[in-house]
This record gives sequence, C-alpha cells and structure tokens, in this order.
Amino acid sequence: MPPAPAHDDYLERNADRHVAELRAFLSIPSVSALAAHRPDVLAAADWLADRLRAIGVPEVALLPTGAGPVVTGHWSVPGQPTALIYGHYDVQPADPLDLWETSPFAPTLRDGRLFARGASDDKGALLAALNGIEALIKTDGAPPIGLAFFLEGEEEIGSPSLPDLVHAERERLACDFVVSADGGMYGREMPSLTVATKGLAGCQIDLRTAATDLHSGQFGAAVPNAARSISQLVASLHDADGRVAVAGFYDRVRDLTAEERAEIAAVPFDEAAYLAGIGAPAAWGEPGFSPLERAFARPTLDVNGIWSGFQGEGAKTVTPASAHAKLTCRLVPDQDPDEILDLIERHVAGHQPTGAEARIVRHPGSARPFAIRRDHPALVTAGATLRDLYGRDPLVIRLGGTLPVAEIFQRELGADMVFFAWEMPDTQLHAPNEFIALSDFRLSARAYAAYLPALAR
Amino acid sequence: MPPAPAHDDYLERNADRHVAELRAFLSIPSVSALAAHRPDVLAAADWLADRLRAIGVPEVALLPTGAGPVVTGHWSVPGQPTALIYGHYDVQPADPLDLWETSPFAPTLRDGRLFARGASDDKGALLAALNGIEALIKTDGAPPIGLAFFLEGEEEIGSPSLPDLVHAERERLACDFVVSADGGMYGREMPSLTVATKGLAGCQIDLRTAATDLHSGQFGAAVPNAARSISQLVASLHDADGRVAVAGFYDRVRDLTAEERAEIAAVPFDEAAYLAGIGAPAAWGEPGFSPLERAFARPTLDVNGIWSGFQGEGAKTVTPASAHAKLTCRLVPDQDPDEILDLIERHVAGHQPTGAEARIVRHPGSARPFAIRRDHPALVTAGATLRDLYGRDPLVIRLGGTLPVAEIFQRELGADMVFFAWEMPDTQLHAPNEFIALSDFRLSARAYAAYLPALAR
Repeated sequence: MPPAPAHDDYLERNADRHVAELRAFLSIPSVSALAAHRPDVLAAADWLADRLRAIGVPEVALLPTGAGPVVTGHWSVPGQPTALIYGHYDVQPADPLDLWETSPFAPTLRDGRLFARGASDDKGALLAALNGIEALIKTDGAPPIGLAFFLEGEEEIGSPSLPDLVHAERERLACDFVVSADGGMYGREMPSLTVATKGLAGCQIDLRTAATDLHSGQFGAAVPNAARSISQLVASLHDADGRVAVAGFYDRVRDLTAEERAEIAAVPFDEAAYLAGIGAPAAWGEPGFSPLERAFARPTLDVNGIWSGFQGEGAKTVTPASAHAKLTCRLVPDQDPDEILDLIERHVAGHQPTGAEARIVRHPGSARPFAIRRDHPALVTAGATLRDLYGRDPLVIRLGGTLPVAEIFQRELGADMVFFAWEMPDTQLHAPNEFIALSDFRLSARAYAAYLPALAR
Repeated sequence: MPPAPAHDDYLERNADRHVAELRAFLSIPSVSALAAHRPDVLAAADWLADRLRAIGVPEVALLPTGAGPVVTGHWSVPGQPTALIYGHYDVQPADPLDLWETSPFAPTLRDGRLFARGASDDKGALLAALNGIEALIKTDGAPPIGLAFFLEGEEEIGSPSLPDLVHAERERLACDFVVSADGGMYGREMPSLTVATKGLAGCQIDLRTAATDLHSGQFGAAVPNAARSISQLVASLHDADGRVAVAGFYDRVRDLTAEERAEIAAVPFDEAAYLAGIGAPAAWGEPGFSPLERAFARPTLDVNGIWSGFQGEGAKTVTPASAHAKLTCRLVPDQDPDEILDLIERHVAGHQPTGAEARIVRHPGSARPFAIRRDHPALVTAGATLRDLYGRDPLVIRLGGTLPVAEIFQRELGADMVFFAWEMPDTQLHAPNEFIALSDFRLSARAYAAYLPALAR
C-alpha cells in the first residue's frame, strides 16, 4: 500500500517543526549511565510524555523504575489490533568528548545531517516514528489501529527494571505485536527486515593453583602456573578449526535451511572491506559457514577478557597462583542460556588442568534468543511497506547482538517484535559525532504513516 | 680442619659488640628500590667502608654506580690465592608495613632472633662473614689468604651497574675465586653446598587481531578473538604432560648423571609438606623428573602474566583486539639465553593463531646459567669445613633462582663463586618479620674463621 498523500503532505508541512522538536529533545543530556544526569533523564521523560499528549495520545503516564521511568500511553481502536510502540529516550555517555567536532548536546546541522548524542539511537528514530503517528492522528482524527507505548529510559544500561516491570504491567501493556522504533537498516538504499536477535549467557572462570603468587625460580619448575593453566583451559573451549568444543553446545541449534542460506547469501557482504574496516587480517570462526552466516545465525563462545599474574613494565619472575577469564555466548534458537552455562560448567570441570581448581561464576543478565516467524502478519506488512517505499524487496537480516526486550515482550505479552527503524550503520551509534540524516528522519516518519494503516484489518 | 680455638675465643669475646654493630647496620633503611632512601643507601655504604677499615682492610674505596656505590678493599698476601668476598648492603622495601610485629628498621631481639629488614638478606650474613675475617686478622695480624671485597648496594634492584662495573674494574677485582656471603643453607642442621644457579631469559608476546576491541555481537562470530588467540598460543608452549614444547628448547641441556640424581635424591624433600606450604593441590612440570630435580636442574618456561580485554566487574560483551603474555625461562647449562629467545620467537612465528599477528619483545636482563665444577678447590674446602662444623656431609644443592653476579664474575674475572652463607629458608627473606637467629650469625662467623685458613696453600 503506497503512503497516503495526505499524511505525506502533513509531514511536509510540519517538517521544520519536527526538526526543531528533535533539536530540543537532543539538547537534554539524558545519559542513563551517569548519576549526575539523572535530572536530565527525568526531564527527557517529561518532554516525551508532553510530546505524546500533544499528538493526542490518551492515558499518558510515567511508570517509575529504579532509573528513568517508562513513558506509556494507550489508544484502543475497537475491532483493530493493537501495536505496542517500543523505543528509548536515554542515550549513551558522550565520552570521549574531545573527539566530537561539535558539542554532543548542542545539535548541529551540517550537510543535511544533525549531529548530537542520540541523534539516531534512539531519539531521532523514536521521534520519526511519533511524527508518522502524529500525521495519522492529526489527518484522520484517530490512529488506524490500537496503539500502546513503552518508551524506556534505561536501555543503554541494559534495561535492568524491564523484566519485572513488563511482568507487573502486562495487562496495561496488552498488545498484538510490538513495533520497535529502535533498530536499523542494513544500509542506505538497503531496506531490510530484522527477523532474529541472539541470546546471551555469560560467566567468569576463576582458577587457582596455589595460595599466593610464587617465586618462579623456587617453584616454577615444580608446581602449576595459573596463567598457563587458564590458557590451556580457555584454548580447550574451541577446536583447532574454530568450532566451539563444549560438548552439547550445538545440540539445540536449528539448522539453517536452504532458503535461509539463500536469504543470507542475498545480503551484500564484502569480506575484504569488512575486515579492512576493523583492521583484522583474517576472518575466523566456525567452519562450514560464511562470516555473515556465522554473524547472523550461528552461536558463539566469546572470550571477553583474560588476566593473571604480572602486567606491569618489564619482567617479574613470578609464578601466578590465580587466573581469570570472562566468557559470553551469543545464542540462537533453540539454545537456552542456563543450559549453555551448565554445559560450560561441565566442560570446565572435565578439563581442569593438573593442579588447578577452576570454578564458574554465572553472570546475571542472560537472554534467550529471539526470532519472529516469517509469516507473522506484522512482519509481512512491514516487508510490503518497505517494498512500496523503496521499489525493491527488502533484505532479510538478523542481529548478531542481543536485545533482551524482544524476547521479554514475546514471553510476557505473547507479542512478537517487528523492528521498524532507520538507524543507519554509518551514523556513529555509541561513538563520537553520532548523527541522523534528515532524509532518513523524514523517510522513517513517512514509513510509519504508511505501515500502521496497512496493519488495519 | 677444625676451627682454631683462638679465633673462636675472639668471636666469643666480641659477640656482644658484633650484635650491637649488626643492630646499627640494620637501623639504616638502605632500600635501594626507593629514591627517598638514597641517602640511607649512601650512609650504609659509608658505614660498611668504616667497618672494613676498622677490621684493618687496606685500600677501602667506594666505586660509584648509578645507585649505591660498591664498597671495595684489597689485601694481597704473597704466595696465597685471593678470594673476592661478595655481599650486598642494600635491602628490599619493608612493605607491607602493617604485617611487621616490630618496626623493620628498629632491630628487635625476641627468643634469640633479631628481627629487622635485611637481618638475614644480606646485612646479617655479610657482617657474620666480616666478623670471621676480623677474628682472623685481629688474632693473626693478617688474613691467611689474599682478600678483595665487592660489597654492592643495588642487588635488590637487579644489580644494573654490575656487568659494566665488573668489566671496567676487572684488574682491581682480580682474584682466584669468589666467596659469596649472600646465600643460604637448605635448612637448619642441613649444611649444604650450592653448586649451580639457573640462567634467565625473558620476553613479552604482543598479539593483535584487529585495530580496536569490537562488539562481540557484531564481530565475535566472524573475526579472531585476541584473548582466545593468546590462550591458544600460550597453551602451545607446553605439551599435555608439562614438557616445554618449543622446538630445540632442551637441545643443549646437560643430562643429569646417575651421580647427580643420587645427589638430589639425598636432599630431604617432603612433597606433601612442600605443596601444603604454598597451598598447591598438586605438583606439575616436566615428566620424568622429581619436583626437586626439576627445581634444581631442569629448565622451565614460565608464564609470568597474561592479559587481554575486559577485567572489570560483571560482563562486557567485547571481542578483544589485543593480548599480551610475559614469559621467562629459567635456564641450565649449557643453554644460552639469546638462543632460547630465538627458539621462542621461531615457535611464536610458527604457531600464529589464524588472523593473529604476534610478535616478541625481548626483555633486557638475560643471565647465563652458572655452575661450579665439583672438584674446584674452594668448593671442596667449603665442603670439608661444613663437614667439620656439623659432623656430617653437606648436601649438594642448586638454586632454581638466578644470581647473574655468579656468571658475571666467572665470565669477567675467570673466578668461580662458592656460596658460603647462612640465610635460612625460615627467615622471611623479602617478607615481613625478616630475622636472623643469633646462633646462625655466630656459627657463620666461626665458619668463615675456619674456611679461609683452610684455603691457604
């Protein structure tokens, strides 16, 4: 269904005001990670609640959390499905400040790009969605489908309140599906549908070989060395080819179908450019899969850190007595985080280096993998909307990262999430000089004004 | 040759003064590692030079270095060999101060033990030797053999000036052999001859897999992980049994003879008590050798430190791009430190994990292994002196640690070192509450008064 001209006209007429509002929103330094910015986080929540009211959304409320409150609102439309609009108004810290060309909280327009922390992630992407919704309401008097809002203020600190809050408020949040205004396209002129995000399970290995660090001349020849032992143990977690060697790790992984492999093969991927972009001399990982297949759809076991013994200048002839390694796994359907940690614990118990005592401490914050079924009506409609907007079929992509919220909404509300947002890979998300292209800001609003009516029965 | 009663009588009569002098010497906080104590280091050198003059040693002089000067002196005796007496007047830092029962630089006598930093290492051991020499000179008018002195003030910081200084002063330091007043016995009532010290070679491995640390969700499945790569590389340095897997590492190692193995087997060693003492659950190391054989006479490759990625609280889903490991090898005759580092470099080049670039940075401060031949007259005489003093054959032991000075004197002066000192393993060397048993202080002086005359032709 092509975008309705009336909605587009509305967006054209209000384009300058929408940019002015984005500037105002971006000027509030709502950094959730820093206690000093707590008043700014609250101010951003108030600003956003006012914005929802101005659009005409009823029942706007702030649900308190340990950090920034969740901004909610609700507009039922009889006979129509309800979409829960998800986004967040908190932003990453702006450090390192000296790498910003202009101040991160003084939005600055250069060459059609508005530079500020949060310009894309997620203030820009979220306001674009609200602008599309505003165009529908102001033009038609009501939204085409029911709308609920869940706009949080602690996404950049891992949404610690979210699981309990969604569980407690599941009636208020009742919906048929979730539309996320936080998400990205594979590239400019590369419309894409995100159909899966990976789960996460993490732990730390603590290994000990003696009571205290020892003199290597007195003891190094006779007793185990913790730094060597942890190396042996960590090296045992993968086989020589790069496959995870933890027994049972792949047991529940759904095989990629021929269709899925074709889908991934259709996504443009220049391995040489990808490697050059990060300064990596070679790709690495599970054999039998392309780098993109691995990044999209295969589970990993990542060593996030390792440390033992002396790290200072020069030499110290010590035989370390303790050593540590941090691990996280990225999981795909149908892996279970707790079961994966059980398998790692069993592996560590079965691969204890001689004279070493290694134990596992599980990290909180596990997440299950998320996937939406390909025939989900909201996903199919999103694909059709993108096809209309761009004149081509969207790519089907998956996130190698983890968005616990998708799986939490699925579990608590029975609602699948459709990612419908335009954060572009070049927009310096989480980095200095983050920006949004105003063309993407406008395109995204037009897309929402086209997408939501298409979801009506 | 039993100790001459006249010398013992002299030591008996002067025992109280000798302890008072030791207290005065120990009261000077000559910590070479701390710049704030530089005046104390110089004061200790002056004190020691005065002490040599008081004994009657001629040609006492201070040879300047970058740190504490070397106190020298020289007394030729025509027709007799010359022994170079080695020791040091600097001490380790006293930290952690709160673990000392009494102040480290206020020597305190409890139960026949004098507690202070340096009480054994090396102020006590050195003054005991000088007391024995004083007894000989004051009783007989002259030493029985020629004496030279090399008493340094930077031993606890690795004797950085020593190689150049010994080379430059090799004429002044000319001698037939060296007697070290820094060294220990295997235990109380366990007289022992130290016949070898290990060499040392060290380096750092710096490994890189990408330009910067990466998001594990975006990149962890597709590119190498530096923490995993360094683990694989470090694990490759030993085989599964604990043998160093660097090709050629053992090529120049002299096999232990049946006599040597019997010698080591004769040394009391309680493996269970040894492991319990350091809280180690099990011994580990090169197969085919006992722990004591390994500690005394087999080379090692020790991982002194390893680090990569995130080490903070909780989880960080990063794919580290750089990793580091510090290695030192303890070497035995006829291994060469430079050649060993060549072999490690070749191993690292041949075991580069996929996509990782690892390079070696060599540490300065290599040392060759040292060994004295068993029929060296000064060693044989030391053994006979111990046999007379204790009424039993001394044990033959080796140091797992490294004393570069022994090899430097051997190389520059053609003089082998005999360790003749009574620092006991229980005396808290380098640790809080270091002490010397006054019985050992007196025994050591008597031993010098017996040993040096026995060296006369």
